Amino acid sequence: MTTRTSFFRHSEPLRYEGPQSREPFAYRWYDKDRMVLGKRMEDHLRFAVAYWHSFTWPGGDPFGGETFLRPWMHGDDEMALARAKADVAFDLFHILDVPFFAFHDRDIAPEGRTLAQSNANVRAIADIFAGKMETEKVRLLWGTANLFSNRRFMAGAATNPDPDVFAYAAAQVKNVLEVTHELGGANYVLWGGREGYETLFNTDLKRELDQMGRFLNMVVEHKHKIGFKGTILIEPKPQEPTKHQYDFDVGTVYGLLCRAGLEKEVKLNLEANHATLAGHSFEHEIAMAAALGVFGSIDINKGDAQSGWDTDQFPTNIEDTALAIYEILKAGGFTTGGMNFDAKVRRQSIDPEDLVLAHAGAMDVCARGLLMAAKMVEDGALKAAVEERYAGWDGAEAQAMLGGGRSLDDIAARVEAEGLDPQPRSGRQERLENLFASYF
Amino acid sequence: MTTRTSFFRHSEPLRYEGPQSREPFAYRWYDKDRMVLGKRMEDHLRFAVAYWHSFTWPGGDPFGGETFLRPWMHGDDEMALARAKADVAFDLFHILDVPFFAFHDRDIAPEGRTLAQSNANVRAIADIFAGKMETEKVRLLWGTANLFSNRRFMAGAATNPDPDVFAYAAAQVKNVLEVTHELGGANYVLWGGREGYETLFNTDLKRELDQMGRFLNMVVEHKHKIGFKGTILIEPKPQEPTKHQYDFDVGTVYGLLCRAGLEKEVKLNLEANHATLAGHSFEHEIAMAAALGVFGSIDINKGDAQSGWDTDQFPTNIEDTALAIYEILKAGGFTTGGMNFDAKVRRQSIDPEDLVLAHAGAMDVCARGLLMAAKMVEDGALKAAVEERYAGWDGAEAQAMLGGGRSLDDIAARVEAEGLDPQPRSGRQERLENLFASYF
Amino acid sequence: MTTRTSFFRHSEPLRYEGPQSREPFAYRWYDKDRMVLGKRMEDHLRFAVAYWHSFTWPGGDPFGGETFLRPWMHGDDEMALARAKADVAFDLFHILDVPFFAFHDRDIAPEGRTLAQSNANVRAIADIFAGKMETEKVRLLWGTANLFSNRRFMAGAATNPDPDVFAYAAAQVKNVLEVTHELGGANYVLWGGREGYETLFNTDLKRELDQMGRFLNMVVEHKHKIGFKGTILIEPKPQEPTKHQYDFDVGTVYGLLCRAGLEKEVKLNLEANHATLAGHSFEHEIAMAAALGVFGSIDINKGDAQSGWDTDQFPTNIEDTALAIYEILKAGGFTTGGMNFDAKVRRQSIDPEDLVLAHAGAMDVCARGLLMAAKMVEDGALKAAVEERYAGWDGAEAQAMLGGGRSLDDIAARVEAEGLDPQPRSGRQERLENLFASYF
Amino acid sequence: MTTRTSFFRHSEPLRYEGPQSREPFAYRWYDKDRMVLGKRMEDHLRFAVAYWHSFTWPGGDPFGGETFLRPWMHGDDEMALARAKADVAFDLFHILDVPFFAFHDRDIAPEGRTLAQSNANVRAIADIFAGKMETEKVRLLWGTANLFSNRRFMAGAATNPDPDVFAYAAAQVKNVLEVTHELGGANYVLWGGREGYETLFNTDLKRELDQMGRFLNMVVEHKHKIGFKGTILIEPKPQEPTKHQYDFDVGTVYGLLCRAGLEKEVKLNLEANHATLAGHSFEHEIAMAAALGVFGSIDINKGDAQSGWDTDQFPTNIEDTALAIYEILKAGGFTTGGMNFDAKVRRQSIDPEDLVLAHAGAMDVCARGLLMAAKMVEDGALKAAVEERYAGWDGAEAQAMLGGGRSLDDIAARVEAEGLDPQPRSGRQERLENLFASYF
Repeated sequence: MTTRTSFFRHSEPLRYEGPQSREPFAYRWYDKDRMVLGKRMEDHLRFAVAYWHSFTWPGGDPFGGETFLRPWMHGDDEMALARAKADVAFDLFHILDVPFFAFHDRDIAPEGRTLAQSNANVRAIADIFAGKMETEKVRLLWGTANLFSNRRFMAGAATNPDPDVFAYAAAQVKNVLEVTHELGGANYVLWGGREGYETLFNTDLKRELDQMGRFLNMVVEHKHKIGFKGTILIEPKPQEPTKHQYDFDVGTVYGLLCRAGLEKEVKLNLEANHATLAGHSFEHEIAMAAALGVFGSIDINKGDAQSGWDTDQFPTNIEDTALAIYEILKAGGFTTGGMNFDAKVRRQSIDPEDLVLAHAGAMDVCARGLLMAAKMVEDGALKAAVEERYAGWDGAEAQAMLGGGRSLDDIAARVEAEGLDPQPRSGRQERLENLFASYF
Repeated sequence: MTTRTSFFRHSEPLRYEGPQSREPFAYRWYDKDRMVLGKRMEDHLRFAVAYWHSFTWPGGDPFGGETFLRPWMHGDDEMALARAKADVAFDLFHILDVPFFAFHDRDIAPEGRTLAQSNANVRAIADIFAGKMETEKVRLLWGTANLFSNRRFMAGAATNPDPDVFAYAAAQVKNVLEVTHELGGANYVLWGGREGYETLFNTDLKRELDQMGRFLNMVVEHKHKIGFKGTILIEPKPQEPTKHQYDFDVGTVYGLLCRAGLEKEVKLNLEANHATLAGHSFEHEIAMAAALGVFGSIDINKGDAQSGWDTDQFPTNIEDTALAIYEILKAGGFTTGGMNFDAKVRRQSIDPEDLVLAHAGAMDVCARGLLMAAKMVEDGALKAAVEERYAGWDGAEAQAMLGGGRSLDDIAARVEAEGLDPQPRSGRQERLENLFASYF
Repeated sequence: MTTRTSFFRHSEPLRYEGPQSREPFAYRWYDKDRMVLGKRMEDHLRFAVAYWHSFTWPGGDPFGGETFLRPWMHGDDEMALARAKADVAFDLFHILDVPFFAFHDRDIAPEGRTLAQSNANVRAIADIFAGKMETEKVRLLWGTANLFSNRRFMAGAATNPDPDVFAYAAAQVKNVLEVTHELGGANYVLWGGREGYETLFNTDLKRELDQMGRFLNMVVEHKHKIGFKGTILIEPKPQEPTKHQYDFDVGTVYGLLCRAGLEKEVKLNLEANHATLAGHSFEHEIAMAAALGVFGSIDINKGDAQSGWDTDQFPTNIEDTALAIYEILKAGGFTTGGMNFDAKVRRQSIDPEDLVLAHAGAMDVCARGLLMAAKMVEDGALKAAVEERYAGWDGAEAQAMLGGGRSLDDIAARVEAEGLDPQPRSGRQERLENLFASYF
Repeated sequence: MTTRTSFFRHSEPLRYEGPQSREPFAYRWYDKDRMVLGKRMEDHLRFAVAYWHSFTWPGGDPFGGETFLRPWMHGDDEMALARAKADVAFDLFHILDVPFFAFHDRDIAPEGRTLAQSNANVRAIADIFAGKMETEKVRLLWGTANLFSNRRFMAGAATNPDPDVFAYAAAQVKNVLEVTHELGGANYVLWGGREGYETLFNTDLKRELDQMGRFLNMVVEHKHKIGFKGTILIEPKPQEPTKHQYDFDVGTVYGLLCRAGLEKEVKLNLEANHATLAGHSFEHEIAMAAALGVFGSIDINKGDAQSGWDTDQFPTNIEDTALAIYEILKAGGFTTGGMNFDAKVRRQSIDPEDLVLAHAGAMDVCARGLLMAAKMVEDGALKAAVEERYAGWDGAEAQAMLGGGRSLDDIAARVEAEGLDPQPRSGRQERLENLFASYF
């Protein structure tokens, strides 16, 4: 049996108590074994806890410093602190009873004096993880390399003007990709936090896109070389920390993948808050990725509709969450992907219990969103309405136009011959919105 | 000799009087024959007046109706009004002494009871244009079809759920593409104002992308069939009128072109205000299109930094304009493209002279922006700073990494062997911004 | 018995059928006589239908014209059309069974050749309203004057550079204020759609604020003169149609009321979408108005989180609506105010039934939001959490500081003497968000 | 003679070399003794260097840590480091030859174990300042207290739910206000970075506004008590760090001042980037403050038009700067206020020289903006255009309406009697924009 730390007041897994429960430390909707559309709820949602926000972020913001004062952040023996942090992390996984977690290399282990030492630190903690994962039955949704915090990356990693930084980043990714593979990770993520620019005055944009394309190809080649079966995922974000990030949104990343010849090799990890920052709804980004064949996984969180930066809040709106999950279900659900809580408690939420409650509440929101989305699927009325709207395209002539069998000349001749004068039909938006509300 | 209408008070072409002139009806900077970087200013800027904003828009906004009361907008004989409008339009081209204009089919001629009649109306006015263009030495930068104003297009044109609307739009484009060809147009533009959606509840996103891809391929096929040598251009815009438009921005359109196999056939017409709405600077969109090999032409205007819709104002900021033109010069300047004033006088600017002054002022802003950008090119200091920053990539090992000759394993081995620890160098942003200001 | 027009397919009032009903033309949550916190649901929500969006707007947008083709918008006899429109309007009030409606003068009657004639037209229709209101038991939530559509107001009404426009606007308001009084209106609203500016280059900002202050004072004086007991309401909006509107948001309007000496005389009509455009949440604006003592009424609708203009959509998100209603309940609920659907069906929703369903769905959303908010009030846990958080302020010393009994010197002396070192306590945001979700 | 540190390569004051100079370490436009509108350029612009961004910020952002590695940020003896920092700061003041600087208490001296000790540290450094200010002829534009960085302020200072935090903040302000007074500061600023809320769920908004009002009154009372002749300034900002800040913008702060009875006692310190974040142009905020009688001082910087957070960049656009300065000149120029560079070099600008060049370039931009604005004033054409536009208000009847001598009844009678039908006149926006460009 695993010994628990004393960081959290209670160390027992939260239980499902049902919607009527008033117990804060329990699930009201997340009932992991409940069958939904023929699959266990846990297997639908595939929740992961993110190491960085919950265990590595000290609670600072641009105008103030640390608020959390976590015990594992203060001390001289950095590796000992990293081990203490891992103990608390697995406590939280245990309490929440989540199937997955995710990490950056720099979240889990301290940076050494050389990259070799840093990599060794990562491996040392990964070994500890391997043991804990065995005991605790928690798996790795994905690993990733932090290529943005250290000042060496201030001008980018793959897109750095200095080829030595490119090389350093490549070596770092190799290590984390291999560690992820060894830990049985389901995916490997690249988030290009500084792959972008601050000003065109000092930037060769085309050159940087070329560098990025080559870097990505090397990662894919290495994946195949080592036999990693997980998915390589890119996480779009339009800006922050840089003024402009190349991986702006789904549409843009798809274009860059085409340019690099990787649109069949790489999929996307979509974050709700990043969609917001790019001027999209989250469900749009999911639908777009699905349409383009690159939907992979999600970072579930929410932004503040009035704030122009990445607030990474825990999701709270059931209706919005249901919309996102409905698109995921339409896309066939997750394969290697899952729902990673790239979300942080507010910096005023300084109690250890806030960490537990934030995750638990968000899991309930997602569970309820799943149930609502499942109702939408089962009922089928929304799908039927869409199909009816496009039914005209089932005709032979329409199919010929779409299939390439008709030219502008052909069509123009027919329009004139038939005196075509198509009349608009109601889009029925409000009726469909009412239908959506009825699933709630 | 052409007879001028009495709409504008003066009908003589505006003359260049130089920076010290206090005459409002004159150019202070636009001196069309002045040589800049080895080319006439007129040939650099290739200005076009847009028919729609200047002659077709009555001055309404979502909260109020017509303010301009243009004489050619009130009367029973629609074709006579269209001819009267053409006379005034060519008066303005003459007064401004611009080399180009641009139009939608519905700007120049009234809609008939059938598409055949509408097309005939367009051809009738195009014939008048042909004569005037001969006399006035003004050319057509591009033509385009209005596939968004009529209610039949309320749910899109190529992406309409009704295949008959797709067919109608195809037939309409055929006509305008051919008219554009016959008038010697330098380009043909597609702006998909309603190629997008209002709500995912009634939308099959993938199906609509397929429809759009096929439509675009038909246009390109027809271009080749009729021997049109101009460029087919797509104009990105993220939203408005629809909530989401598929042609969101340069990055997204590039991806959709790849998906349709057209990234070598189609280029982009970039609008300043559309860049703003997509969360980009205008110079970013130009630089991005150039890097992706799809830069074509621009709609020069400006948005209001505090307003979330397409204000289509005349450009007024010389520094911003210089930044955009610098990117165009870096991309090699225009080939078939040009600078189209997709800009409208404010609805309170109800005097005919406001139309003249708005264009003249904007042309001066662009001329001055060109001179500033040319200084940047001639001086070369900005370019040198960029090249120096990336100089490390000229090395053999760096080139090998970029060219595909190195794997993650190779690189990681070298990083470890050499104990690589790259140190960051200043990005010198402020120094370069000062340099930019010095060209002013 | 009233004869119904044939515009809507069914003319019977929608019935409450309960949450399980699948009937689109029925209420699932709005049960007007249901008692909630000791008051009938109808008396809590005080729904009004807005004449402009539902009966006067033809379905156009900046890129396209009329889509609705309402029969009362096409014909020569404008007063006959206005009467036909009124018949349909009261049909909709009847079908929805709403207690209120609201209008601008120009919505209900055509503009005449002179203001006197326009005013007479308004009175003629108002007489018809009076009869219908008697029969149908529907009341007037508020009347208002349209001081923005006609081109005479293109540069503002009260803030126009031309004093004759100020005078014209004043005379127009006098008429509608009196008509509103005669029809027993509960409030009179001023929305200054063009009280703002496009550019500071042609604007004397201080002078315009003075004009606006005087105008508002005249309206209040006239209200008292004629014995109108309703509330004078100002509706904040930050921009659109103008670039900057003086009535930016609650905080700004409060300041302008203080400047005009009217902060005790005038209250605010808050619109959800206007809050969004100003960078606030709707609940913020309500809470702010309540704190400043100027909360009056609301325009219930929603904006699109990704669009920068006033989309005026029907509200669809139950959780967001509950948050707004919770703030209204905390402020004591409505007195003269109510919930006006300043919302329009999408321009693709061209069927008459779309109008019915849009309102019905939104009423259900609000009803459900009310039930959720009532649960929050009844449970009391949120309120208790807030009170506990500020409990320290109940102490004598704290009250002395707040009440003016302590100076900086006093306090500094005490801080030093006591060695005060206050420790932060968790803000518990996620815990409270979970609590909120539990009321759903 | 002062001994200079070796931090900057050169320690000689930058000289004015004129527009043609290619020397980066020189002024091209800032010529402090040049007379502009009858006043020395230095006395117009009253530049101040901000201690926090230039000497205290280590170069971190939300995704990465320190990049600058300033020598005074690493060491054990905090007071020695603070003294070393002061030496470098006065070196920069000397090199730039600016007349002013500004600071927070926590910028200049380390926090002690108790507030008494912190205050003592501040005084110790202030004593050093006093000596340096004497020698170097640099003055204090304003002082302020940092009430947002320490975790004790995470839930606000004056608006904290804990009265002990209110007390602590009050004691801290007393100290800095007195230090500012003793150093001859021209103003004292309050920026309420955490006077706002994260969520209404845990906030009593009205109570917090009351606390804030009382706090502000105490500061004003203390100012009079100690005989401080400078101006008390509030700095509006809409959000960041908190989700919503009470001091949202000029209009809102004015209202809160009225509520606290302080609209005659307190003025505003306006920041360009804060205006942007609030949805305003900077010139709007200045014009608005001037119209409301509360214009005080400015923080000159710029935001990124595409980024939703406070980027605090050095101003680079001459035209935008000229617009702001034109409004300041129209308001009579600065009295106690000035232009404080609340601007930071980008975190990639890690060389000491970047600090020098960033300030120098910005000073040149401001100097050039001043010259342009002065031309606008001297020419008078813009002012004349505005006056002509409002000339109708000079008439007796118009003045009677504005002055309170007319009622709605009076005016309506006159409108009807005279058959008033005011016709709109062109707003001439583009013509005036051209005029503006001509001053460049």
